[in-house]
Amino acid sequence: MIKTALTRLFDLRYPIVLAPMGGVTGGALAAAVSNAGGLGLVGGGYGDPDWLRTELALVRQTTSAPWGAGVITWAVGPEIIRQILAQEPHAVMLSFGDPRPYGEMIKAAGCKLICQVQDLAGALLAREAGADLIIAQGTEAGGHGSQRSTLALVPAVVDAVAPVPVLAAGGIADGRGLAAALMLGAQGVLIGTRFVASDEALGSPLAKERIVRSTGDQTARTTVFDIVRGLSWPEPHTGRALRNQFMARWHGNEPGLVDALAAQSLAFKQAQQSGDFDTAMVWAGEGVDLIQSVEPAGDIVRRIGDEAESRLSVASALVS
Amino acid sequence: MIKTALTRLFDLRYPIVLAPMGGVTGGALAAAVSNAGGLGLVGGGYGDPDWLRTELALVRQTTSAPWGAGVITWAVGPEIIRQILAQEPHAVMLSFGDPRPYGEMIKAAGCKLICQVQDLAGALLAREAGADLIIAQGTEAGGHGSQRSTLALVPAVVDAVAPVPVLAAGGIADGRGLAAALMLGAQGVLIGTRFVASDEALGSPLAKERIVRSTGDQTARTTVFDIVRGLSWPEPHTGRALRNQFMARWHGNEPGLVDALAAQSLAFKQAQQSGDFDTAMVWAGEGVDLIQSVEPAGDIVRRIGDEAESRLSVASALVS
Repeated sequence: MIKTALTRLFDLRYPIVLAPMGGVTGGALAAAVSNAGGLGLVGGGYGDPDWLRTELALVRQTTSAPWGAGVITWAVGPEIIRQILAQEPHAVMLSFGDPRPYGEMIKAAGCKLICQVQDLAGALLAREAGADLIIAQGTEAGGHGSQRSTLALVPAVVDAVAPVPVLAAGGIADGRGLAAALMLGAQGVLIGTRFVASDEALGSPLAKERIVRSTGDQTARTTVFDIVRGLSWPEPHTGRALRNQFMARWHGNEPGLVDALAAQSLAFKQAQQSGDFDTAMVWAGEGVDLIQSVEPAGDIVRRIGDEAESRLSVASALVS
Repeated sequence: MIKTALTRLFDLRYPIVLAPMGGVTGGALAAAVSNAGGLGLVGGGYGDPDWLRTELALVRQTTSAPWGAGVITWAVGPEIIRQILAQEPHAVMLSFGDPRPYGEMIKAAGCKLICQVQDLAGALLAREAGADLIIAQGTEAGGHGSQRSTLALVPAVVDAVAPVPVLAAGGIADGRGLAAALMLGAQGVLIGTRFVASDEALGSPLAKERIVRSTGDQTARTTVFDIVRGLSWPEPHTGRALRNQFMARWHGNEPGLVDALAAQSLAFKQAQQSGDFDTAMVWAGEGVDLIQSVEPAGDIVRRIGDEAESRLSVASALVS
């Protein structure tokens, strides 16, 4: 077993946290990861109270292991945080925005505060908010993120916020990535895209298949999927998705998309409903090269954890 | 000692290669790295025959250990490759462009062919060129590069070109990065920016000081420094530099820079000559957070190598 500050904090078998991906990480996926010995976080996203009610009830029914939930900080208000805390999660994760207004509320509930950051400035805010864990998320991550890359960001954040434990996120999809993250000084990893291609993930099987078939060369960061959905993401956040026809048409011509928004928005909603992923987005990180099939989430947790244990166990053999 | 395919190929003490940075990696720096047990590569850049003559003579005089040289593939012709090969380097490194026209010439001279790539497609071309080593360079690297990030790119390239050995480049500036790269399946690392801040590096002490003072949050990829110098870099290559006044003014307004090119180009040349780095660029990767002082290159090689050995030696202790 790999022992780190993360595994000790939640008594986990593996130093692996499931990314709380809005619309993808429901209660079933979060519970599957927690039951396998990781930490599952329900994807509260922009904070839909009805969706959260259903999925939080599901995760509570399906696991007795530690679990949590995450939200997009700038998009939610205190009532959503209170709704989550009422379900007695072991952790709440805040991403994309200033976590300080919620730090005290979350910790007062006896819940661990996890903050995801994309740069050094964000890491210092997270420490000020009282974060129990800080996730350094690199630009290679799928979905929303920013500009810095995991390999250089993680050790910089580790140095900047010590002794607060740091996790690595972005571009990690196998045991090699987990072992590398631990060498960088991280206490574990947050993994998203690899779990999108799991049986328990919400979302279209067609989207999961695109992730399996694609290479990391085919992903890009863009704002066009936020613009067309009418979402006002604050700079410098963008979303990494598989390149498709919609991105090819509008990425680089964002003003044109704004001008055509009424018609494009309608067509986009229809594409989302019908599962037309030439138009609708498939969020995906650069780690897609390492994803070969859709599998049960528990198998993914165990394989990544066991591969990392093997790598670390033989690492000293590289040194003679 | 860390033993990898890289150290065996050149009989190195450390699995560390010095990036051949044009205008920075002269013969003195390359020799210092080789003398310390890494592999020093003179930075041939765009291929200036007079500069190369001087610096190749210097590296030959200053080390009896293996050394090499690198060039920008799209910018040089066969005569520059021949000029380098005539000095009997142990390795020639080709970056940014199709290496296939030169593979046979380099290998026929008894010299190892190193190809640096920025994506999977490039890795397959490098293998076709007969590369003895393939460097997977992430976007976090300083100077020219592309879009994919090191942590996800390296294992993908390792899988795609096996059994050709792969090195990691981009964002590596300490022993943590080297140890992480080895966990990803790399056989060593290529390091640039960390060696810019060395005593032996060519270039202005003011530029070195900016690297020491800056954080990774302060770097960005841009084309404005190529546009103002009249260099036609092929897409999708950009250069990562410290943000400065010139970048703030023109990045995002590249057409405006093209319109003002005559005057801007003159002012830029003067800034380069006078060491005005509010205008002239300082190429730098995201690893600048990890650089605290200007030091002898040999000390940098030994510290990074020894730190990585320590990390790898205790890695198995993480697993109980």
